[in-house]
Amino acid sequence: MPHTLVLLRHGNSEWNQKNLFTGWVDVRLSDIGTEEANRAGELLVESGVLPDVQHTSVLTRAIQTANIALDVADRAWIDVRRSWRLNERHYGALQGLDKAETLEKYGPEQFQLWRRSFDVPPPPLADDDQWSQVGDPRYADLTDDELPRTECLKDVIARMLPYWESDIIPDLATGKTVLVTAHGNSLRALVKHLDGISDEDIAELNIPTGIPLVYELGDDFMPLEPGRYLDPEAAAAGAAAVAAQGKK
Amino acid sequence: MPHTLVLLRHGNSEWNQKNLFTGWVDVRLSDIGTEEANRAGELLVESGVLPDVQHTSVLTRAIQTANIALDVADRAWIDVRRSWRLNERHYGALQGLDKAETLEKYGPEQFQLWRRSFDVPPPPLADDDQWSQVGDPRYADLTDDELPRTECLKDVIARMLPYWESDIIPDLATGKTVLVTAHGNSLRALVKHLDGISDEDIAELNIPTGIPLVYELGDDFMPLEPGRYLDPEAAAAGAAAVAAQGKK
Repeated sequence: MPHTLVLLRHGNSEWNQKNLFTGWVDVRLSDIGTEEANRAGELLVESGVLPDVQHTSVLTRAIQTANIALDVADRAWIDVRRSWRLNERHYGALQGLDKAETLEKYGPEQFQLWRRSFDVPPPPLADDDQWSQVGDPRYADLTDDELPRTECLKDVIARMLPYWESDIIPDLATGKTVLVTAHGNSLRALVKHLDGISDEDIAELNIPTGIPLVYELGDDFMPLEPGRYLDPEAAAAGAAAVAAQGKK
Repeated sequence: MPHTLVLLRHGNSEWNQKNLFTGWVDVRLSDIGTEEANRAGELLVESGVLPDVQHTSVLTRAIQTANIALDVADRAWIDVRRSWRLNERHYGALQGLDKAETLEKYGPEQFQLWRRSFDVPPPPLADDDQWSQVGDPRYADLTDDELPRTECLKDVIARMLPYWESDIIPDLATGKTVLVTAHGNSLRALVKHLDGISDEDIAELNIPTGIPLVYELGDDFMPLEPGRYLDPEAAAAGAAAVAAQGKK
């Protein structure tokens, strides 16, 4: 029996609409994002891929997405697990900045490096910055070392994969269909692992928002075949839109 | 340090509006119920009583209530635990029946006995009834003996209190503020325990919908003082409305 894993990237947020770097800042879904989450739920119903347990980050936009999608799919009642390890990449000192202004100020090369470099994080966010997460009660159990002030994708992989091993795989192992609702970069980190994508090639991977991505995994919890989007046409258009974001 | 427990009864559902016996039938909140859940979230914010962990039944109307209230209170990110042991009382063969028609057919004495008797359950629901929960995947882990076909309040207490001991008290013991979002009868069962209400007097207790009820508990996890509703005036009006339901 293959193990079924469903990945879902949250939809459009209030700060996507304002074109601000978000990272760990806890913004809410926009009306468009709410619609995307509803559509994700409909895709689960139409495909008959019904999660038995759900994992989310501790960021509201991912939780809202999961709540809405599962409510639409009549699966609000499944077990819930949350972890900061599924959070979006921490964007460091860029959190709260306007993307277009940042591009103009630092130029396209530096901008693209911060957005897509595998191992170069943005400058760290100061602990007394208004967009810092220091003191946020949801991170009270983290050591000071665990709480990031900035991250590159390599850092995200380093803190996400242990959760994949310790919490998601055990749910898959019991035969449950697992839904993971998270973010562009935490899901890129997981897909990089599953699809064996190189550090160089991962820069080109864009995961569209609001479209469930389904993997059938073998007993080694690696894919038996490539993952499939439940709406491939919308997924291709969505990935192209994400790729174009840096070029605004 | 007292332990803080918050009880929340879900609001108006689609079947409340249709005046049908619901029990374990998994109906959704009505628009009024959604508004009540929003108001519950606002009351949490206004009072500064902010849950650190939430428990719900596995019924959608309670889960929707908790999701909405916590979203309004910016606490969507707290840990979630669910159990069938927090479900509404199973209404047996009454599930799906019109309350007014049932009252007319069986008379006020029998009707009130089924609604409020401590230890007389309605007739059992047949396993092949359209409103039976036999075969529902959310109860797949229950033994056949655990899955009720009807319940009186005494039965609800018998399956709810073990969860209070095994799952809710341990969360309280860690110092967390615990939100329990559930149903008229599972919450009556818990309040009966906390307030030491007799088997006779519990018939008179009516818990209003959508208004958080806050208890401060001592180290024995029993109340240090009477529970307080976050909106006492609305709570009194709501309890009176629940009491009047049987008299329609």
